[in-house]
Amino acid sequence: MDNLGIVFLSEVIGTGMLVLLGCGVVANVALAKNKGFNGGFLMVTFGWGFAVFAGVIVAYNSGAHINPAVTLGLVANGATEFGAGVPVNVISVLTYIGGQLLGAIIGAIICWIAYKQHFDDEPEAANKLGVFSTGPAIRSYGWNLATEIIGTFVLVFVVIGFGRQGETGGLAALGALPVALLVVGIGASLGGPTGYAINPARDLGPRIAHFILPIKGKGSSDWAYSWVPIVGPIIGGVLAGFAAIPLLPILT
Amino acid sequence: MDNLGIVFLSEVIGTGMLVLLGCGVVANVALAKNKGFNGGFLMVTFGWGFAVFAGVIVAYNSGAHINPAVTLGLVANGATEFGAGVPVNVISVLTYIGGQLLGAIIGAIICWIAYKQHFDDEPEAANKLGVFSTGPAIRSYGWNLATEIIGTFVLVFVVIGFGRQGETGGLAALGALPVALLVVGIGASLGGPTGYAINPARDLGPRIAHFILPIKGKGSSDWAYSWVPIVGPIIGGVLAGFAAIPLLPILT
Amino acid sequence: MDNLGIVFLSEVIGTGMLVLLGCGVVANVALAKNKGFNGGFLMVTFGWGFAVFAGVIVAYNSGAHINPAVTLGLVANGATEFGAGVPVNVISVLTYIGGQLLGAIIGAIICWIAYKQHFDDEPEAANKLGVFSTGPAIRSYGWNLATEIIGTFVLVFVVIGFGRQGETGGLAALGALPVALLVVGIGASLGGPTGYAINPARDLGPRIAHFILPIKGKGSSDWAYSWVPIVGPIIGGVLAGFAAIPLLPILT
Amino acid sequence: MDNLGIVFLSEVIGTGMLVLLGCGVVANVALAKNKGFNGGFLMVTFGWGFAVFAGVIVAYNSGAHINPAVTLGLVANGATEFGAGVPVNVISVLTYIGGQLLGAIIGAIICWIAYKQHFDDEPEAANKLGVFSTGPAIRSYGWNLATEIIGTFVLVFVVIGFGRQGETGGLAALGALPVALLVVGIGASLGGPTGYAINPARDLGPRIAHFILPIKGKGSSDWAYSWVPIVGPIIGGVLAGFAAIPLLPILT
Repeated sequence: MDNLGIVFLSEVIGTGMLVLLGCGVVANVALAKNKGFNGGFLMVTFGWGFAVFAGVIVAYNSGAHINPAVTLGLVANGATEFGAGVPVNVISVLTYIGGQLLGAIIGAIICWIAYKQHFDDEPEAANKLGVFSTGPAIRSYGWNLATEIIGTFVLVFVVIGFGRQGETGGLAALGALPVALLVVGIGASLGGPTGYAINPARDLGPRIAHFILPIKGKGSSDWAYSWVPIVGPIIGGVLAGFAAIPLLPILT
Repeated sequence: MDNLGIVFLSEVIGTGMLVLLGCGVVANVALAKNKGFNGGFLMVTFGWGFAVFAGVIVAYNSGAHINPAVTLGLVANGATEFGAGVPVNVISVLTYIGGQLLGAIIGAIICWIAYKQHFDDEPEAANKLGVFSTGPAIRSYGWNLATEIIGTFVLVFVVIGFGRQGETGGLAALGALPVALLVVGIGASLGGPTGYAINPARDLGPRIAHFILPIKGKGSSDWAYSWVPIVGPIIGGVLAGFAAIPLLPILT
Repeated sequence: MDNLGIVFLSEVIGTGMLVLLGCGVVANVALAKNKGFNGGFLMVTFGWGFAVFAGVIVAYNSGAHINPAVTLGLVANGATEFGAGVPVNVISVLTYIGGQLLGAIIGAIICWIAYKQHFDDEPEAANKLGVFSTGPAIRSYGWNLATEIIGTFVLVFVVIGFGRQGETGGLAALGALPVALLVVGIGASLGGPTGYAINPARDLGPRIAHFILPIKGKGSSDWAYSWVPIVGPIIGGVLAGFAAIPLLPILT
Repeated sequence: MDNLGIVFLSEVIGTGMLVLLGCGVVANVALAKNKGFNGGFLMVTFGWGFAVFAGVIVAYNSGAHINPAVTLGLVANGATEFGAGVPVNVISVLTYIGGQLLGAIIGAIICWIAYKQHFDDEPEAANKLGVFSTGPAIRSYGWNLATEIIGTFVLVFVVIGFGRQGETGGLAALGALPVALLVVGIGASLGGPTGYAINPARDLGPRIAHFILPIKGKGSSDWAYSWVPIVGPIIGGVLAGFAAIPLLPILT
């Protein structure tokens, strides 16, 4: 397999792991009869954080973007090379994003299988969609967009900050921990209004899965909102990439 | 003691520690009058995660499998040698699994001693069995099996991923942290339908202890379900071992 | 940009990140209709802890004080040089504190934007102020001051203790974790009576933002209490700096 | 100051920090009107865990026992030298334990100051004592003793296991994290029946403080139970020290 193929596969695996575990914790908390039912928002934030942890670990061959906002933020920041030695260009960017989207769809399908009976037993259609994709607490596209931009800005800006701290040293199996904890923090701190997509693939992929899967009583996939968790994270990620050029300099 | 003896003892100790602390957190949350009573599912997931942490720390001499699904997953992945320099063969695999099962039984017995009065005071037999072994939220052997396969696949696949990150460096006392956090995440994200056995010894050992111990008003040990958290994790672990060969390659 | 300019910018960014995420978690828990509404005090303590984590990561160019009590505590401890090679003097101290205060104001404004609709929908003025600044559970300036002194003493004393542990090694992206966990602990353990400002900029900056922003139905900014979370942390930090000279010696 | 003086001071500081933060989290959760009131048992376990973290950090000059059960467990394990190069003998052991007890008393007094108003406002005397010292959920000295023995055995056994993992590497400021997480785990998993003293100084020191302090409406100090959290942890720690000799060998 050539390097683009390795990158594509790696992003499929990493984003699939992310979405399986991330959507899984929402299923556990939101769908009736689960052992974690009503487990609280803190559990959701830790669940998504450790989902990032697992996803980053298994996507090492591509540098573990597992998020188009990260890929595009790195481009905006001036990266010339991605993981596996692939140069930054339109083809490689599309390879990353394509792998992320496909992985997110697959992860959501497996999550549905793991929670199949609880989807069948859940009476509320909105709870079912909520396992797959984000939705606003108070619908207002402009403000929802602002919240997603701010959340994703924090994600990409701090991730670039991690890169400024130098080597990750010998304890590589903990190298995914900083970004995992960051995502726990973003969820706790900025997840209230929109449920923090902060990742277009994480939201669109599962929404596609929700649309195509034969989920009992599933209701609408809410396509009217779907552009917000795509456009917001892209804007936030790109802004962070640009902002980090002057704001996160390497001290000489 | 020869190396197989060291491996056996190490797995007994590690799995005993895992099950003592893991069953303990369920006892704390589920049995009446405990200080952690009704402490929530997030506490259960952290309790099991730090139980893994402690178990891995004390089982260093055998490579700390403390789970037959891990042992068999490594075999499927093509391992030729386990911890303590023992070669992979039928004898060594049985030594690992035997130690794990014995350790799990011992750990469950000590947990019962630590919570003796609360077992005596608890009116519900189902809560008592729940401290020892897992059970489904909605009973349906096929779907329960699917959930256990998926959960264990994630466990073994990501554990193999840790091994791809290279050296754990000098901070060895934190080397058990990644797998601990992974288990917290699997519990939060995939533990809703079946209580995430993801380890045949963790479920069968305590079930045997439940069966033989003179627990007041203990009720059935639910042997009808007992094969699910054995077969599911074995399938999931072996699948992960095979899948990791092409999916988690070492990049050259 | 000269080194003082780099320090100023770094402290603005770090403290802005701290306050955005820190005030954000309170908004999520306290303001109506949020997904994390009533998420519990533990979520608040983890939110502030990971806010410190993110703030420290992006303020690497100034040594990441992001808190006047830390800056003054280091002076009291006898420091002769801050981050970026700037010598300790009145100008550099004021540069640090000025950057911290400006960053805190900016962070609070961005937090307000992220939660704009929830501020509009929240009926209680006290909950709105609570997102920005701390207030006492039982008002009594003397005892409130004592609690803030003790909390900040612990913060600065243990931070100086971190410095006594030698190098942070190669895993620099985790170098912010100890102080993050310390802040989680201080919040859980000493945050009950006053909401643990333990940082004059973290409290005064958002209070200024609350005062100037056009927040719907915002009520009083409670300036009568505002001196407590300024004076208390300064006293606590300076005491810790002095106390650490004899109490945290380098063993020879 | 000679080395025994350094050890004494270090254990006073470390145990004082441990008890201040540890008793603090109980005060926050148990005493009326606190911001963390009814924050849940998981918050208590994290609070005590990070209390250990802070205590270990500042007690580096003595090797940070901050617990007589650890000191005696190391003796039983065959240690010949403690921190700061002091040899193991009756004088040095008493120096450690004396420092621990004095530190625990001081930490409890400072905790009382930090929560003074909430002690005054709390109507239940039992809740006040509960901030200082542990008590059984179901009183039965024999079983309570068994639980404390088991919990402390786990603590000391795994701590010795940490020592078998070799160097802690360059990230020394995280060197206290493993034991902190272990204590979170023991609290979650074995803290239900007795509130997990697992440290004679942690229980006796605050009980003495409770006895001598002029706490409003404080009620009994429950001296009848006080021997259990002293004798149990000593037995558990010593057993762990002996057991680790054959069970945690260094693999050759």
